[in-house]
Amino acid sequence: MGGKIDLKPTDDRSHPEYRRDPLTGQIVIIARQRAHRPMSRFPSDDEDLPSGDCPFCEGRETMTPPEVFAIRPEGGARDSVGWQVRVVPNKYPALMVGAGETPSWSEHSGHLGDLLQDDALPGVGHHEVVIECPDHASSYHRHGDAQAGAVFLAYRERLRCFARKEGIASAIVFKNSGRSAGASQPHAHSQIIAMPLVPPILEREWRGCDDYWRENGRHYFANLLDAERSHGERIVEATDDFVAWCPYASRFPYELCVCPREEQARYDEASDHQVEALGALMRRLMLAMDNALGSVAFNYFLHTASLDSPNVDGVPAGFRWHLEITPRLEGLAGFEIGSGMYINPVPPDMAARDWRRYMPAADGATS
Amino acid sequence: MGGKIDLKPTDDRSHPEYRRDPLTGQIVIIARQRAHRPMSRFPSDDEDLPSGDCPFCEGRETMTPPEVFAIRPEGGARDSVGWQVRVVPNKYPALMVGAGETPSWSEHSGHLGDLLQDDALPGVGHHEVVIECPDHASSYHRHGDAQAGAVFLAYRERLRCFARKEGIASAIVFKNSGRSAGASQPHAHSQIIAMPLVPPILEREWRGCDDYWRENGRHYFANLLDAERSHGERIVEATDDFVAWCPYASRFPYELCVCPREEQARYDEASDHQVEALGALMRRLMLAMDNALGSVAFNYFLHTASLDSPNVDGVPAGFRWHLEITPRLEGLAGFEIGSGMYINPVPPDMAARDWRRYMPAADGATS
Repeated sequence: MGGKIDLKPTDDRSHPEYRRDPLTGQIVIIARQRAHRPMSRFPSDDEDLPSGDCPFCEGRETMTPPEVFAIRPEGGARDSVGWQVRVVPNKYPALMVGAGETPSWSEHSGHLGDLLQDDALPGVGHHEVVIECPDHASSYHRHGDAQAGAVFLAYRERLRCFARKEGIASAIVFKNSGRSAGASQPHAHSQIIAMPLVPPILEREWRGCDDYWRENGRHYFANLLDAERSHGERIVEATDDFVAWCPYASRFPYELCVCPREEQARYDEASDHQVEALGALMRRLMLAMDNALGSVAFNYFLHTASLDSPNVDGVPAGFRWHLEITPRLEGLAGFEIGSGMYINPVPPDMAARDWRRYMPAADGATS
Repeated sequence: MGGKIDLKPTDDRSHPEYRRDPLTGQIVIIARQRAHRPMSRFPSDDEDLPSGDCPFCEGRETMTPPEVFAIRPEGGARDSVGWQVRVVPNKYPALMVGAGETPSWSEHSGHLGDLLQDDALPGVGHHEVVIECPDHASSYHRHGDAQAGAVFLAYRERLRCFARKEGIASAIVFKNSGRSAGASQPHAHSQIIAMPLVPPILEREWRGCDDYWRENGRHYFANLLDAERSHGERIVEATDDFVAWCPYASRFPYELCVCPREEQARYDEASDHQVEALGALMRRLMLAMDNALGSVAFNYFLHTASLDSPNVDGVPAGFRWHLEITPRLEGLAGFEIGSGMYINPVPPDMAARDWRRYMPAADGATS
């Protein structure tokens, strides 16, 4: 950066805010306290990950806010060592817990209200960090299936908790791995943001499924998986429980989607068996990505149906929760940001062939 | 990357394709020939920009496809030295010139057609590179206003050319500066992509203006500029011809928008005077960004109204062309990609104050 502006604003007690562009409906979270985040020095590919005073390492539990969930197979006190996975509030949250009210936009889509007046809501919500394993220079996919399963169990337990909270309409679980995928800490972690509103991509998927059901009398995801399996070339793996494939309109090279075989809209309703099986599959996919692309930066995120909320009209017909994995081989550039379209140099059929080639067997080998 | 997959596919003669996700409508350009792009070694901040065998430097005109436009103040032959600004087809195009047909999506928004069958179109279009100055380690804002004006003139001339072409409905001019903003070449350049369809962000802006006009009987941009000028805090600069401000719902820290004061929907209709004045203003803004943020990666892009096309219903009421500048201080992460929302740690009022502080006077000082 080398700039002269100090990006750390002095007054950080202001509550974050949702702002909506009155023209396009684009929603932004203005969260000045995020500017205080420390950015760790990221090592280059061949360097060991420096542990320094990483706040996510075992033994440094006091460096984070008190945990809200953890898995300790041998038992042990809250915020002590001995955990497998640990969930804590984000120290630099994009959203903050509110005073009980459920904010919602005015009816008039912004166009009839006073311009730039009706287009803000208090930034109410939850922002948590899922620390995926106790050791610094590793990741759940380098451990056994049990470690991977614990991570996906933690996601489910937190979503179950958010589903019980008043006024939370949606949640996104997401992982940033690598500096160019937006990670500010190299220690493996994911995040959960739970909100009183529904973000636009999720809303488009939910509404798209409802529309598809009304127009075709069939469930979109059921139909899509049938189409993909009959085409075949984009399927990476089909297990007893899940299908993994490279989407037809993949935005990113090697983009991959994982979806359950059974009708299930809400990830918080996944069974223990499904969670374990998902951990095992995701572990193999992470190994395949390492094998195929090296230590590439990537994101993944979970799209799941509505949590119980007066802001949401029930569960969309035929929607299934799914995980999307987006390797970040190229940066998002002006065309993507300016147009909302993506340019992808690797056709998904070709990407799926490479994924299949590097996919380890399901027997549990670690590499 | 260090991966094992060779990202350069062997069969690159396949035509690119527009693909639309049947659920969300997300449009992607699948362009495998883009995988052949060379990525230059980018220097770190304090290093001199290596020229090596940069194809955009003066004297290497044969390394690019033949130019389609250039400004040579002293005259001279096509593809010879002596140019101020030069426009060439992109050697690794995302889109290719078609066989005269104008592709358009089927009427049924994908939902009634055969899934994954009706959701592809040939990737017809134009993809050009605007080389912004002859010397490698510089940029138009380090030269005089004349150099900046020449760049903005080149944009206009190419848009005028695309406006005359059959079946081109829209064009995006965009600049990627810095590796983390998506640039693959450090020599200052921008790009133009012209398409038979309208990308979703542009479409939302056009439709939003029409809706606003119908609902309020007023022009959106006129109303917005009134609101911003009456608020005042987000205005960075107001010249005789333009207003520059930090948008209310800025997605990026220090995001900035520039819009003409007069009603003008199409940039290809800008006068010579406007083009010159825009170049001078953009030059000062680029200097302010350097001064405030150091050598930060950034994008800018131009949103302009419909080119003449049977695919587009005239010019949207009250829309004005505008340039958006998006510094890239943080990467786009899983939350942004997964939700379609942005988290911005710098409120636009604060950003505008910083922009104003670092804005050089209009007298033409170079730094």
